[in-house]
Amino acid sequence: MAYEKRQLPKKSDNLSDWYNAVVLLAELADYGPAKGTMIFRPAGYRIWELIQEAMDKEIKKSGVENAYFPLFIPESLMRKEKEHVEGFAPQLAVVTIGGGEELKEKLIVRPTSETIMYQAYAKWIQSWRDLPVLINQWNNVVRWEKRTYLFLRTTEFLWQEGHCAHATHQESQERVQWAIDMYAQIYRDFLALPGIIGKKSESEKFAGGDATLTYEILMPEGKALQGCTSHDLGQNFSKAQGIKFQDKQGQSQFVWQNSWGFTTRSIGALLMAHGDDAGLVLPPRVAPVQVVIIPVTSGEEELAAARKLADNLGDVRVKVDTREGESLGFKINKWELKGVPLRIEVGKREIESGKFRMVRRDTGEVVDGEVGGILDQIQNDMLARQEKFLRESTYEAADYEQFKKIMESQRGFIKAFWCESKECESRIKEETKASTRCLPLDAKEEKGKCVYCGKAASHKWLFALAY
Amino acid sequence: MAYEKRQLPKKSDNLSDWYNAVVLLAELADYGPAKGTMIFRPAGYRIWELIQEAMDKEIKKSGVENAYFPLFIPESLMRKEKEHVEGFAPQLAVVTIGGGEELKEKLIVRPTSETIMYQAYAKWIQSWRDLPVLINQWNNVVRWEKRTYLFLRTTEFLWQEGHCAHATHQESQERVQWAIDMYAQIYRDFLALPGIIGKKSESEKFAGGDATLTYEILMPEGKALQGCTSHDLGQNFSKAQGIKFQDKQGQSQFVWQNSWGFTTRSIGALLMAHGDDAGLVLPPRVAPVQVVIIPVTSGEEELAAARKLADNLGDVRVKVDTREGESLGFKINKWELKGVPLRIEVGKREIESGKFRMVRRDTGEVVDGEVGGILDQIQNDMLARQEKFLRESTYEAADYEQFKKIMESQRGFIKAFWCESKECESRIKEETKASTRCLPLDAKEEKGKCVYCGKAASHKWLFALAY
Repeated sequence: MAYEKRQLPKKSDNLSDWYNAVVLLAELADYGPAKGTMIFRPAGYRIWELIQEAMDKEIKKSGVENAYFPLFIPESLMRKEKEHVEGFAPQLAVVTIGGGEELKEKLIVRPTSETIMYQAYAKWIQSWRDLPVLINQWNNVVRWEKRTYLFLRTTEFLWQEGHCAHATHQESQERVQWAIDMYAQIYRDFLALPGIIGKKSESEKFAGGDATLTYEILMPEGKALQGCTSHDLGQNFSKAQGIKFQDKQGQSQFVWQNSWGFTTRSIGALLMAHGDDAGLVLPPRVAPVQVVIIPVTSGEEELAAARKLADNLGDVRVKVDTREGESLGFKINKWELKGVPLRIEVGKREIESGKFRMVRRDTGEVVDGEVGGILDQIQNDMLARQEKFLRESTYEAADYEQFKKIMESQRGFIKAFWCESKECESRIKEETKASTRCLPLDAKEEKGKCVYCGKAASHKWLFALAY
Repeated sequence: MAYEKRQLPKKSDNLSDWYNAVVLLAELADYGPAKGTMIFRPAGYRIWELIQEAMDKEIKKSGVENAYFPLFIPESLMRKEKEHVEGFAPQLAVVTIGGGEELKEKLIVRPTSETIMYQAYAKWIQSWRDLPVLINQWNNVVRWEKRTYLFLRTTEFLWQEGHCAHATHQESQERVQWAIDMYAQIYRDFLALPGIIGKKSESEKFAGGDATLTYEILMPEGKALQGCTSHDLGQNFSKAQGIKFQDKQGQSQFVWQNSWGFTTRSIGALLMAHGDDAGLVLPPRVAPVQVVIIPVTSGEEELAAARKLADNLGDVRVKVDTREGESLGFKINKWELKGVPLRIEVGKREIESGKFRMVRRDTGEVVDGEVGGILDQIQNDMLARQEKFLRESTYEAADYEQFKKIMESQRGFIKAFWCESKECESRIKEETKASTRCLPLDAKEEKGKCVYCGKAASHKWLFALAY
């Protein structure tokens, strides 16, 4: 494997060429043999493990328990909620042969687990005493894609899907909000990716749900990426699948439900947002290796000093690069490409002076100080840079001319009044390729006119080109 | 849900009826809608998480990294190793439709990942510097089953699969041994299940491997359960898939490989081995709830004391049962059925005296002392009881008459000389249903005669009825 910089296209020249190359060269992922699939290599999977660790703690703390439901959903079960099956039909992978025989009923490889989980909920839930049911799964799901975009668009991806059932709509809505807030915290505090929380439009919401909250992130070329979603399912599934409970008064009621998911797509957003022309730049909290120590030569003394330094770094995820047959310059390029937040070089001179050369990956600065503190500083600075980018790339369009101009030039998020009619939404998309991303939760009610039709509108929605 | 004891068949009357009933009643699992599938309910999945936590630490400590490879394996790839595909063919689930279209090439839902992983290894491995490759996956696999036996035999199960590639056979064999030893430690120290480590016979080894090490556990009715396996794959896959490296002398060589797996079947063994007529008995280290605190009435004072006691138990996994509408007796039965290792009752009298009634699940004894110490004692006692059972259920058969007599009456493990011919092995199986379980690694070379044909034999093998 070679890590020479000249193999890597410039990020500013062609974002997707840069992205594909850097993900492969940094050994985070590879293509799988079946169309649309990918391999999570150890460094790529480790990022997912670090996200999981942080998120699983939050999930458990809030009283949700993990479980595991089957991969295979009988076709008839998938059909129980009409809008749901229509939404997913074009994306399904279907098992028709099992144990050497043609199956009587086809099995869907789960694209999401609402139907299979809720069939069990219908059996398990009888009384108000059984509520709330708070269950999460960490698993793999399949939604057919013809072309792989590593991490960002793949036939199979990894995620968590939370599925809760409540006695009241209010309690369910609180859980919907909890999930999107928890996701936003992970995105900001771990992935250093600020975003906008908002409500999806009717045409963009989850198939079978009442309302969807989303976290929208802006990518370097000014396109929006849907970071994750949390759905208020109302009573749609409980009515379709008969999930009823006896309330305290002895009345039979349908439960209120929600589901919320966060996928490995988040890793794609992470890589794309923070990298530069030299390769990846990983925020310390999700970096598989936080500090790389490179002995300047392969001399015994330098190796020993490097190992000692590593041992003294405690909980820090550290790697000493002792690989033979690579020059110092080659190694520096390699670890820059892999995005390791901090590099420490250990040479004879450094051993004598007791002061090692430390270089930040994000700024290229030579720095001094305590490693833990430097890593925190990098994490904070990376978030601050993204916040600045988000702020500077969010525009307001007073009229449709302005709207089109922004979409043709700098792109980014556009805030604009919209009358909430499907027709205006789809015309805008046709003409500018920009879709409604969300109604930001902090958007105030205002008096305005739809940017497209000029009719009365009460809120400024967020628009952007989307992945 | 009701937890009345009379619903539960006696364990000694009918083990499998007891087992199915207790797993459902204790809410550890449920049946999935597709044949052969199961749902891991939160309490059942939590056991898996606790096993994962302990094992993942060991795996990482030994230098193996986690990764994730695709679920779908193109049929042509699966065919690369002849014995391997023949071994798995009758068990495969096959996707023939994707994205609404008939697929040109069928996709196998992974029954195990050798072929798909090794195709990538062939690409990634070039030089001796790239070795060893040490990768593990935590994932789901599918091997078709018509009838579900919860945890023990299911179409889809969860597992880890380790896949390593080395420059030398010796290094690979050391990894094979490391894996089985690590598994044995988890079985003994966490699941309180002693077993026999040994080598599988030619006919029982992994399809496509050179040799298989196994951990064989004895179940209460004297049947053996294969606890997990670790395979020396030799160069079979590297030759079939062209995984070559340049050694230090510049020569091209095929890598030496191994794979090793531990599945959710282990949970079935755990539940079956330790339960009794009142329900499950869980060893503290893998019990989702280690201590249940039951307020004797729902009085405020008792609830407060129960909560305070729980808060004082620190890292112990504790639950306070505040569910309304259940009597003390009902609650005691419920938690006994769920197998919680230690029960603490909090009543007025106990609050006054400051001494709570504590009852061990495994022995029914009322105990005194510090909770952590009691839990350790329970863990140790449970292992000791299983060791005694294993010792007392292992027989030696000097001749075939004795062999048959044991298999017809008490069953258990039989140690007997075998000439290692496939014919004797299959005749013994036909006539007694007992199969070779393994050649225990500690078996000495001895002079003897095959228990079946009377020809010379050099080792006593372990036989048993198997699941």
